[in-house]
Amino acid sequence: MELIYPEFYDRFAAFLRSLEGRRVVVISHARPDGDCIGSQVALTRVLRALNIDVICANPDPVPRRIQFAVGDTPLVNFDGLPEGDLTAIYVDCADQGRAGEKLKARFPAPFANIDHHLSNIGFAQHNFIDVGSAATAEILAGLFLDHHLPIDAQAAQSLYAGIATDTGQFRFNSTSRRTFLIVAELMARGAQPAAAAAELYERETAGKLDLLQRFLASLSYECAGRVCIGTLPNGIYAATGTSPEDVEGLVDYARSIEGVEIGVLIEEQGTAIKASLRSKDPVYRVDRIAAAFNGGGHACAAGLNLRDVTMADFRSRLVAAIDTQISAVDTLKKSTL
Amino acid sequence: MELIYPEFYDRFAAFLRSLEGRRVVVISHARPDGDCIGSQVALTRVLRALNIDVICANPDPVPRRIQFAVGDTPLVNFDGLPEGDLTAIYVDCADQGRAGEKLKARFPAPFANIDHHLSNIGFAQHNFIDVGSAATAEILAGLFLDHHLPIDAQAAQSLYAGIATDTGQFRFNSTSRRTFLIVAELMARGAQPAAAAAELYERETAGKLDLLQRFLASLSYECAGRVCIGTLPNGIYAATGTSPEDVEGLVDYARSIEGVEIGVLIEEQGTAIKASLRSKDPVYRVDRIAAAFNGGGHACAAGLNLRDVTMADFRSRLVAAIDTQISAVDTLKKSTL
Repeated sequence: MELIYPEFYDRFAAFLRSLEGRRVVVISHARPDGDCIGSQVALTRVLRALNIDVICANPDPVPRRIQFAVGDTPLVNFDGLPEGDLTAIYVDCADQGRAGEKLKARFPAPFANIDHHLSNIGFAQHNFIDVGSAATAEILAGLFLDHHLPIDAQAAQSLYAGIATDTGQFRFNSTSRRTFLIVAELMARGAQPAAAAAELYERETAGKLDLLQRFLASLSYECAGRVCIGTLPNGIYAATGTSPEDVEGLVDYARSIEGVEIGVLIEEQGTAIKASLRSKDPVYRVDRIAAAFNGGGHACAAGLNLRDVTMADFRSRLVAAIDTQISAVDTLKKSTL
Repeated sequence: MELIYPEFYDRFAAFLRSLEGRRVVVISHARPDGDCIGSQVALTRVLRALNIDVICANPDPVPRRIQFAVGDTPLVNFDGLPEGDLTAIYVDCADQGRAGEKLKARFPAPFANIDHHLSNIGFAQHNFIDVGSAATAEILAGLFLDHHLPIDAQAAQSLYAGIATDTGQFRFNSTSRRTFLIVAELMARGAQPAAAAAELYERETAGKLDLLQRFLASLSYECAGRVCIGTLPNGIYAATGTSPEDVEGLVDYARSIEGVEIGVLIEEQGTAIKASLRSKDPVYRVDRIAAAFNGGGHACAAGLNLRDVTMADFRSRLVAAIDTQISAVDTLKKSTL
């Protein structure tokens, strides 16, 4: 088989050799997702199989739906970290701050940084960053395969979990031919897509569906149907027995409608507002719309937080900002015809 | 590369030779889905590239979301079939009746039958049936690759559409290592998963989301939370601007809840009732529950139609039948411990 990441081959081999005799901690970002946990767990397991002393650490608990990606892998929070000298490897973190200030303070000079985020500036001694990969788990799987490292069934399933979630079940643009080839190799080592799907998508709570129902009932349209906005009012978590974790994915329903270019979710949080924006086409640069409210993100996915503002006031200001952006894009499109 | 379907290799070569000089029609089932249309289109395009005179025919129109899988491929309904002698190839049809009585009457002796359904009894002269394949499109893609047939970009995308939809985006148990390897090959020939996903999942109507919202609001639980039932009352299509096609996928929400073993959708149709049952585990044999109401299907997915019954009356009879089945399974599980 051809090398999957030839550009990393020699450097990764040297990196592996440099880990010998060290005590290692594999760190990833707060509010962990499938790629974060899957990458931490898989790297930890593979390094353990190489007789390296390693655990993983995450500032936040693992969401219920992703727990299958952990198995019996040692995973601690900050307080569970052992004393003494530890070598820190960051995975799936665009910057060190994403794993929280406590971990950043304890590990001011990270040893390694493996990631696929565009904004990663390479903050460690050894950096393996490939923005063309659909997931950090895709990079790790490719490196493990290139170096014929032992991937056990749990590691294979964890890597699969990372790839499946970060590609939206192979729906996002980042899904490449390499993605499918790597998954085929992971299946040969014990990954089970159907079992992963049962954990990821068939363990909803009744409250989550209630939350979805209320969000759908709130949908309204702006900008001649090109924008769809759904809202979550104060008290909705208590009313549905849900938590902020359950908001994940809701905004995609707003965007999924034919003719809608930008989907929006606005959440009341006391006297503050949190909003998520998703566009179908990067031309709408929702990160720029969010930036007008001190938010940020990517061209197709951005978010913002504002204090001391009412839902009604914020909603009208946001619609005005989106309308301006859509008009600018329309004008640009016309002028380039 | 190793052969994907070695058991079919010689027979498929002979079948291709036997098509020379014939006028062919590729037929698939009524109420077409992605695998049906994807398979018809891809086989038609590949045979055309071999200079065979071929069109596809389907008794029903292609749903809006699947139209991208057709492209410029000639596809007609029964009335659009040319006169004269035609050789009929059925794809993705468990039996000939699934494509409707008109086509069955015109083609009483089908020439070929390519399918992955367990219940297919091989009704044609040439039968290529593999129940271990996730989709008929998977079988066709494998046969085309094995025989180095020319798969153009539209055929690759059509085959991808069939595989992606029939595996529920690679979530069903049928998804195998072969599935991923074949998709990688299709991507090398022009398949674009993200573009397919935009057509399949980002072209919802506002009415469809309204229908989903009302279905979610109707969810209720039976059998100590192990059964979740949602209902669609008379008049809901008119109220939401939707059609029966939009019901697809709703029942999966009822099943997706943690602790729910069987999800149910009951639809009022005047004085008749249509119901769909989905279980997480085949042990519940929802086909047997459906059979008690003259319905049928598979162990995890079944349906039924009943005339002259009210929603309330049917609902209580169905719950009783499900309760009996669940109790029987519980007893069986206990006795085998």
